[in-house]
Parts: sequence; structure tokens; C-alpha cells
Amino acid sequence: MRTTVGIVGGGPAGLLLARLLHNAGVASVVLERRDRAYVERRQRAGILEQATVDALRAAGAGERMDREGMPHDGIELRFGRRAHRIDFPALTGGRRVMVYAQTEVVKDLIALQLADGGPLLFDAQVLGVDGADTSRPSVRYLHEGREQILTCSYVIGCDGFHGVARDGVPASVRTDFTRDYPYSWLGILAEAPPAQDELVYAHSARGFALASMRSPSVSRLYLQVPNGTDTADWPAERIWDELDARFAIDADPAGRLARGPVLSTAVLPMRSHVTEPMRFGRLFLAGDAAHIVPPTGAKGLNLAAADVIVLARALIEHTRTGSEELLDAYSDTCLRRVWRAEHFSYFMTTTLHTDPAQSAFDTRLQLAQLDRIASSKHAAAELAENYTGLPLPH
Amino acid sequence: MRTTVGIVGGGPAGLLLARLLHNAGVASVVLERRDRAYVERRQRAGILEQATVDALRAAGAGERMDREGMPHDGIELRFGRRAHRIDFPALTGGRRVMVYAQTEVVKDLIALQLADGGPLLFDAQVLGVDGADTSRPSVRYLHEGREQILTCSYVIGCDGFHGVARDGVPASVRTDFTRDYPYSWLGILAEAPPAQDELVYAHSARGFALASMRSPSVSRLYLQVPNGTDTADWPAERIWDELDARFAIDADPAGRLARGPVLSTAVLPMRSHVTEPMRFGRLFLAGDAAHIVPPTGAKGLNLAAADVIVLARALIEHTRTGSEELLDAYSDTCLRRVWRAEHFSYFMTTTLHTDPAQSAFDTRLQLAQLDRIASSKHAAAELAENYTGLPLPH
Repeated sequence: MRTTVGIVGGGPAGLLLARLLHNAGVASVVLERRDRAYVERRQRAGILEQATVDALRAAGAGERMDREGMPHDGIELRFGRRAHRIDFPALTGGRRVMVYAQTEVVKDLIALQLADGGPLLFDAQVLGVDGADTSRPSVRYLHEGREQILTCSYVIGCDGFHGVARDGVPASVRTDFTRDYPYSWLGILAEAPPAQDELVYAHSARGFALASMRSPSVSRLYLQVPNGTDTADWPAERIWDELDARFAIDADPAGRLARGPVLSTAVLPMRSHVTEPMRFGRLFLAGDAAHIVPPTGAKGLNLAAADVIVLARALIEHTRTGSEELLDAYSDTCLRRVWRAEHFSYFMTTTLHTDPAQSAFDTRLQLAQLDRIASSKHAAAELAENYTGLPLPH
Repeated sequence: MRTTVGIVGGGPAGLLLARLLHNAGVASVVLERRDRAYVERRQRAGILEQATVDALRAAGAGERMDREGMPHDGIELRFGRRAHRIDFPALTGGRRVMVYAQTEVVKDLIALQLADGGPLLFDAQVLGVDGADTSRPSVRYLHEGREQILTCSYVIGCDGFHGVARDGVPASVRTDFTRDYPYSWLGILAEAPPAQDELVYAHSARGFALASMRSPSVSRLYLQVPNGTDTADWPAERIWDELDARFAIDADPAGRLARGPVLSTAVLPMRSHVTEPMRFGRLFLAGDAAHIVPPTGAKGLNLAAADVIVLARALIEHTRTGSEELLDAYSDTCLRRVWRAEHFSYFMTTTLHTDPAQSAFDTRLQLAQLDRIASSKHAAAELAENYTGLPLPH
């Protein structure tokens, strides 16, 4: 098979890229390792920045999001048994976020692509990217029981942190930056109305907790747990008791979350990773294939969307004018924004979680920083600007 | 001897407190362990916040400072071989700092106190504070070869981090919070004109450097060095070469500092420490006796001044009205501001220094944060507000 742009990975990055290219008349093929049902079921992020929302709308994938998504104008921080709200529009000149699950974004993009788009192959396991430094790179993949070759003008690696595309950038030109965190999240999906209309981030002596939501009747909840935690040790009652303890504040000491059936639990490790550069010859990396963040800042999906927006613009420009200027700038353009998000995600993570090795001094510093966010316009605005997302480069 | 307020320590905190009390007609005695020449010679901080400047003026100790001090409207940050200026008045609504050495502040306060004030005893070594939880606390000290007792209504511990007053707060009610940093500063006093009109803070792969000044002809310079460094390993030429290497930027790669005779060098350890509470009965701690910060944020002297301003107000109020309200609030009032400064000092220190154990990822986070300060109004204003000093509590 031949195409202009070979896209490895049918997650939100690959699917959004395929959509943006299709709308501009640039041909692509998407190869996804899993089957459709699996892809449409995986629980991932749920907070869309304004720029991501705008891109989905521009791609024609905004209809159901605008109907079912929940615009949020802020978050609540809990620490020192107090609650403090961060008002996004007031602090950022009108910016907000949209709560709409990544799963739903993926469903919408798959439906569009299958109805009207280039080939989207499920159960297509990519084995490797070859000839990235030639004018005709290719992708080797297993599909329908045999090894096949997709020959392209460009290959885009959107296959996530555990994907194979990153290995197409040879070790000799590549640097990997990594940080592992000494805690994980227990992610809980529950059929229970959300605690509040907005997300609640809690710093507590018992560890971090986050109350999020997927819909008006489904809560998405997170508890900081030790690395290596077994979900079997967290029956529903223990989960709800621990959530109540971590969210407790003086103004509402007995406050209990509304409880309901726990639909699923999973342990999510926390890691930061960046691969530089994000391009080698005609292979470009986007999203988790190039960089991951701990989920505390809700940046992963949004960074992936930003990458493919920048990349689609560069590929379309190249197709129309032959200019390689934007393609050449791709890695540097994205990495500046990536490192900003890496820092913000690190900041949110280390300010809100309890490191098992942290001292009483470290805990006081966390509380001092949270107190500052609650009392200084600039400190609050710095959080709000980063959370709602920095503007995309022009 | 008897007095109303017994002040342990004749550094800037103790001397300013004595002055503020004297001006309000409250009697005090200051006991200083060292002789006058030693106290007037010790090299310490040199950056006064607006609130400290205002307090010195209000205390009648502002005349020479206003004549010889150098108001500064900003600092320069160097990182990634670029320079970026932080404009304090533009970011804070007109606030600035004053460069005037602590040594000079101390000289001015001593001269005033000896000319017109309560007793100020040099060579008076305090051995302990007794009866802090009684109505007549006392200070035991060695002076003129014999042990003597100063009986007071209140005892104020202004005798620094290595002083004895803190031990008057019993271990049963006291908590100490500490962090040691894995690097020190080599402090250099040199007879050479300052590199720039303002302070220059440099992040570099070789470690942190800071170019400050004491006067238009005397530079105060700092180099990050390993803990345990011997000044003998740093002859003048090595110092200047290393400073040049750390301050180098692309716009001025060959830029050299003006060199001159090195007058003194000393290795300064970096530590954060807070003792809570800052009061036990009739013993109050102020300045370094209660808390120290690494010097990167220029907060130590200013925190000490803030403590004694709050304390003088409380003691004067008590003398006039008998109310203990402000005295009772002293510890909490100061500690909120102390923890803010502890966090800022930690932030400046860990953002600008190279931890010997830090990873390439950590270095990129530092550069991302510095890049953010250089490109975001809120991030820059957050630095400027903290650097020029938060308003004193009313």
C-alpha cells in the first residue's frame, strides 16, 4: 500500500491528524494495533483545553462534544482543610476547559474517519519504521495474518509511550529525558453523581485525591496510592472512605461523596518523559510517542492535539507550496510548549502529592505554595493560564 | 539589671527592635556577644525590601541609607546563554529594592542606639533564658568577667541561628523544620566595579553565579561550590575565570567582568530552617533565631525586619493599652509570611542551582521555568512581587 502520510497509531493524536489532513485533501492511512471496541473503551483523560476544543470543531468532530461536553470555568483546590476556587475566565481573560472524555473524542473521530476518510486499519500491528532518512520511508506491519508494507512520503508516530515508532529515531541523534514518581494513581470509575460541578484537587496528609467526572451520573475519581498497589486491596467501601477522608474540610467535616457502584479500578503509574528531537528525516513523533506527563495537570491529550495541529499545518503547507520551513521547525516549535507542560505537570504533581520520602519542611512548602495560589492574583493566574492551555504557536 | 524588653543579640533585628521601642518610649536592653568592631565588620546581606527601607526611615535610621544606598528597579536572569531583565516597578505597581549592605545598617543603628537609646552591651554572652513561662523572665549572661542577670517583662531572641534563645522554647511545644542543600556559596568581596547596574543571577551548566555589589567600586560576587569547599582552592584568577564562564551569553560570549583585588572569600552553607511557634510565654523569637533561608532570594534580613516591626507594634500596643491581642497573634502573623519567604527562597535556589544529583530532565525543567518567567507576565510578576517583598500585615 502507498499513501502520502502514514500514521502509526489510532488514538486521538493519529485520528485527529488524519482528519485535519483529509479535510485539506492530503491522503493518509492510519494503522491501529488494537481492535475498534478496545480503542473505544479505554479510559483516558477527560479535560480538553480551549485550543483542543477549537481544533476538534475545525476538524468537524465537535458536534457531539458541544452537545454532551461540560464546559468548566474553574477547579477547586483543597488543602489545610480549606477549599479555594480557581476562576479560569476571570484569571485568563475568558478561557475555560471542556470536560469530555477522550474515549468519546476517539469514538467521534473513528466514526468520521470510517464514514469519510482515508483507510483506518484496526488490528494492524506495526513492527517498525524503515528508511526514515530516505525520501520513501515505509512502515512494516502485521495485518490479516501477514506482514505488509505501507510506503509513504512521511511517517507519523502517534503510537504512544509503548509504541515502536520512537525507535525509528536512532539512538545516535536522540536524547530521552525521564522522571518516575514515587506514587501512582488508583483510577476509579463509579456510577455516582459527581461531588461538585467542577473538579476538586485535594492535598491531604493522607495523600492526593481528585474528583472528576465523565457525565452528570458518572464520577471519575483518583487516589494517590503507593507504586505497586494491587486493586484487590481497594474494595469499594475502602475507596469511598478514603476519598471522604482526603476531601474533608473544616467547613464540611462530615461531607461525604455520593456513593454508587464502582464500575472499574486501575492503577496508573506516574511518569514524565520527553524524547528529543521529535523528528528524524521523514519520521515525526507526536503525542505520547514523544512525551508523556503525569496526569495531574490534564495535559497529555492536549499536548498530543497541539502536536498534530502544528504538524498538519506543516504537512498541508508542504503539499501546497513545497516549502519545508514548517516541517523543519516542527520539533523545536512543539518542544518549547512540551517543556512548559512538562514543568506545569511536574509542579501540579509535586505540589499536591505526598512523596513518601518528604520531610515536614517539604509539606509546609507545599502548603505555603497552595496558600500563595489562594491569595495572589499572579500565582492563581499562572496556574489558570497553564491549566486552560497556552495559545498554540502561530 | 531590670528592663521592660530584654533583647538577646545586637544584629539588625535586635538593634532595629530596640530603636522602634525607644522611639515609642518602651525601655529595652540589648546584649550582644561580640565586640562592636566585629559586629560592624561581618559581611551579610545587602538587599532591602521597600518595607525594610520604610521601617529604617521610620526608625530614624534612614539618612545615610538614602544618601549612599542604591535603589534597584530590577534584576537580570541569565540562562540558556540568554539574558532577561525583570522590571520590578512595571510588574509590581512601582515597588523596588535598595542595595545597602547589612553591615552599614548595623553601623547606623549602633551609632543611634549609643547616642540616644537604652543600654547596648557588647561582649555580653548570653548563657540562657529562664522563666519564659513566668511573669518575670530573665536572661543570664557573662559580661565583664562575671555572670549577671537581666530581669525583664519580655525577652526577645534575636541572636541568630546559632544563638541560645531558641532553646528557651521547650522541646515539648516546639517543632523544627529543616532542609540542607547539597551545595554552598563561595562569597567574594572584590575591589572592582560591578558588572552591571543591577544584580545578575546566572543559571549555568557549571553551576549558579550571582553578581551583586556593595558600592559603585566594590563587587559582591557568589559562585555555587560543593559543600566542604576550601577557600584555598579558589585563588583570584580561578574565581574570575569561573565567573566569566558562568555569566557568558551568546550576545556577549567574550564578556569579562572587570577584575580587581579580591578582598575576602568565604564559604556559605545553604540551609532552610523554621522553628514553630515563634513564642513561648514571654519569650519571642525574631529573625534568624526563628528561621533562616538560603540567600538566593535575599529574604533573610528582610524577614528579620518584618518580625521586629510586627513585634514592636505588639509590645507598644501592650504597653499603651494592656492588650495582649497583638502579642498573642505574633507567631501566627509572622509564620505565614515566613513560610511564603521560605518557599520563594527554595524556589529561587532550586531553580537556579545545579544539584549534583539532578538529572537532565531536572535541568530542562529549570530552563522551562526560567523561560516561562521570561515570557509570561504572571510568572514574572510572581517573582517580582516576592523579590521586592510582600506587604507587611496590618
